[in-house]
Amino acid sequence: MKTAITPTRAENFSEWYQNLIVAADLAENAPVRGCMTIKPYGWAIWELMRDEMDRRIKANGVQNANFPLLIPIEFFNKEAEHVAGFAKEAAVVTHYRLKMIDGKLQPDPESKLTEPYIIRPTSETIIGEAMSRWVQSYRDLPLKLNQWVNVMRWEMRPRMFLRTSEFNWQEGHNVFATHDEANADARKMHKMYGDFMRDILAIPSIMGEKTPEERFAGADHTYTLEHIMQDGKALQAGTSHDLGQHFAKSFGIQYLGTDGKLTHAWTTSWGTTTRMMGSMFMVHSDDDGLVLPPFVAPYQVVIIPITRDETADELNAYAETIAEKLRSTGVRVLVDSSDMRSPDKMWKWIKRGVPLRVEVGAREMSENMITVTRRDIGKESKKTLSVDAFVNDAKNILRQIHDDMLSRAEHRNESMIHNVADLAELDSALAAGKIGFFRIKYEQTKCDAFDAMMEKYKITRRCLDDNDPTFVFVAKAY
Amino acid sequence: MKTAITPTRAENFSEWYQNLIVAADLAENAPVRGCMTIKPYGWAIWELMRDEMDRRIKANGVQNANFPLLIPIEFFNKEAEHVAGFAKEAAVVTHYRLKMIDGKLQPDPESKLTEPYIIRPTSETIIGEAMSRWVQSYRDLPLKLNQWVNVMRWEMRPRMFLRTSEFNWQEGHNVFATHDEANADARKMHKMYGDFMRDILAIPSIMGEKTPEERFAGADHTYTLEHIMQDGKALQAGTSHDLGQHFAKSFGIQYLGTDGKLTHAWTTSWGTTTRMMGSMFMVHSDDDGLVLPPFVAPYQVVIIPITRDETADELNAYAETIAEKLRSTGVRVLVDSSDMRSPDKMWKWIKRGVPLRVEVGAREMSENMITVTRRDIGKESKKTLSVDAFVNDAKNILRQIHDDMLSRAEHRNESMIHNVADLAELDSALAAGKIGFFRIKYEQTKCDAFDAMMEKYKITRRCLDDNDPTFVFVAKAY
Repeated sequence: MKTAITPTRAENFSEWYQNLIVAADLAENAPVRGCMTIKPYGWAIWELMRDEMDRRIKANGVQNANFPLLIPIEFFNKEAEHVAGFAKEAAVVTHYRLKMIDGKLQPDPESKLTEPYIIRPTSETIIGEAMSRWVQSYRDLPLKLNQWVNVMRWEMRPRMFLRTSEFNWQEGHNVFATHDEANADARKMHKMYGDFMRDILAIPSIMGEKTPEERFAGADHTYTLEHIMQDGKALQAGTSHDLGQHFAKSFGIQYLGTDGKLTHAWTTSWGTTTRMMGSMFMVHSDDDGLVLPPFVAPYQVVIIPITRDETADELNAYAETIAEKLRSTGVRVLVDSSDMRSPDKMWKWIKRGVPLRVEVGAREMSENMITVTRRDIGKESKKTLSVDAFVNDAKNILRQIHDDMLSRAEHRNESMIHNVADLAELDSALAAGKIGFFRIKYEQTKCDAFDAMMEKYKITRRCLDDNDPTFVFVAKAY
Repeated sequence: MKTAITPTRAENFSEWYQNLIVAADLAENAPVRGCMTIKPYGWAIWELMRDEMDRRIKANGVQNANFPLLIPIEFFNKEAEHVAGFAKEAAVVTHYRLKMIDGKLQPDPESKLTEPYIIRPTSETIIGEAMSRWVQSYRDLPLKLNQWVNVMRWEMRPRMFLRTSEFNWQEGHNVFATHDEANADARKMHKMYGDFMRDILAIPSIMGEKTPEERFAGADHTYTLEHIMQDGKALQAGTSHDLGQHFAKSFGIQYLGTDGKLTHAWTTSWGTTTRMMGSMFMVHSDDDGLVLPPFVAPYQVVIIPITRDETADELNAYAETIAEKLRSTGVRVLVDSSDMRSPDKMWKWIKRGVPLRVEVGAREMSENMITVTRRDIGKESKKTLSVDAFVNDAKNILRQIHDDMLSRAEHRNESMIHNVADLAELDSALAAGKIGFFRIKYEQTKCDAFDAMMEKYKITRRCLDDNDPTFVFVAKAY
């Protein structure tokens, strides 16, 4: 059977993904090493995700702010683990002027900075410095901040949405009076992320704590959300960190308690990125292109007038009246009245993953009917309805699509998690090409033999099992 | 009379402005040269401005996208005027890794880039390159894009919100098939900005075209919005550029017309920045602090329970019921139930410019009344109303405040625009310390004598008078 995307997922998952991004017109590689340009259709999806996530962040009493892009190296250097974790991928600004020298535009040597800056890979340090001034007494706590910004981590093996040198994200940074409060916040926001991904992106997350080996550089505890892709690989979709007093001590974030004593505070940070989009594309899409969860689809319904020339204007106008009715129920609709051929339009919107495609032809118009097809299950869902019945039911159908997409992803997750008794069993499963997450006693992985397997099979510890943290999930990962 | 901000505007306008920013808790200088940190209260104002502007941009058929932060120098170098305009303030990225050398963390020499990047000062070049690929035929036009991002122009004399090395903005970039369409778009968006500033920020703009001397680097026409500050100085609050075919030719943006011929397209760009906030703060505020236009006030109403200890809980709860009623009418409300003293709360929200302050004490509660004071006109507006009357009228009062603020700014503008017949009259006006905009024949300014006056009085040509473009406005400027 011919598919809109070649190769198919089964033939070459990684190439399928790259071609999916192009076919759905989501993004392209930029002429800047490791960076991408997010095209309008991709960015519209991100805006819907961002706005909903922002509402949930603010509902937790967090305030947005905006900190500088550049970080003085001395700040970055204050927390030893942190600098070790990020120094190898830091973009460095060393000059502040260009000059034509020998016919070539280059950094003006006279503009060399005595202290260079790095472009933020994350903002714990620059925000930590501000917090040390903003927090004086227990009355200033908790202090909960967030920003939606771009960050940069120089990337040697870039892949669109999954790993790019520059990416967009939100980063929450918070200060608390006690460790209990800080840890509770890190866990609460971890859960908030999980709810968001399930309720909005239709993605079930494996949620648990990172092992010490895989923690964020400078954290006491890192809570992660791991998604399982259709090829069985893991994708880390978000993290929430209990930073203990590491950054509070490095930056002198102290508060005067009710007891009159000066105490170092406890901090947390948590973030999600455009990477979530990559996960969503890989979890739900198929060999014909993107399949978008309805709540983040820029167009939830596309109406395609099936026109012969003599009826085009009338049909387009009719389609627009249906669109208006749908819009009044809060559905996002596009009428595709472009001059492409109808089959080309159909395939365009299939590839772009619009949840519901509606066809109206001359006969449908005369009978006040429409034909609707769900993107997620395709032809088998195709049916003809009265316009009123469809308009009344559209929001329910969209909700049903969301639920079905989530349910399919949950079943796949279940089928892809395998218990293994020991390293030998893990080794033979991987050697046999078994895909997915392998659940094994964490203790078993603390040895040279496991390190060798990590190297051999490119597997990593994803997280401890929240239900029994003596077990760890191991998988190949994006 | 004691004022909340010292010095007053009359005493030292520039120091007043700096202290206003601090007193209203809007922002602070960052520990990065020329950069600022926008604090939560300042950022909340920006979010309201941004969301409303974004709606208006999209209503014009523009789609948001996201282009890279870094620009290859070769791109930047393709348009000669453009590079001349920005090369002197470009932050340059030259390395992609840090290394500990001689006990000091510094750029790793082995990570030196053969071709350095600059941090975008504006994105005409990198977007131009993309457009040259995205535009193929007349069917692809018009192409209208926008992005909300940070940009960087190294700043030697930074001033919060007015001039910072990094700033946030939106930049629209558009391609058209004809010069007429491009020019019409540049003018339409110029008008859109003017409407936004009047209808949302309560600021009347002097709108006109920049003279050739003051145009954007690489534009055929630059349309500007000039605001008049309370000290008579100009502030450029937004620009819209008709770029002709400069960038289309530099980047090869061509389309196949209906006639089958390949033609260079015409492009435009337009932008507004966080600088608009600086204008808004300087246009409306007074010696007691910020005065916010109601439509962008994070809290339009603050309710202050005037408590004695024994009634605090009851009064706070009562204030919350009033707040809920107001919220249900779409008003943004805060109940300040913090444990500060009531007069301190009053001054806090006066300094932060909340449009309406509501006081409720035990007596008001027993009578179901409130006392309300407008921030913009202060004590003279103070009155006691029934809760229901206030709730029903709050949106109207806020609208009235907006209208009054706009009207006051319009009257001030009128009083600050002076016609001068010739350079001699201009010279004596400036020598006498007259402040404001001076309207003079543009021809008169094209001579060495005027250049000398520009130097002497730090004045510049702001824009041509739209009503009669043989005249130009001249002023000192931020």
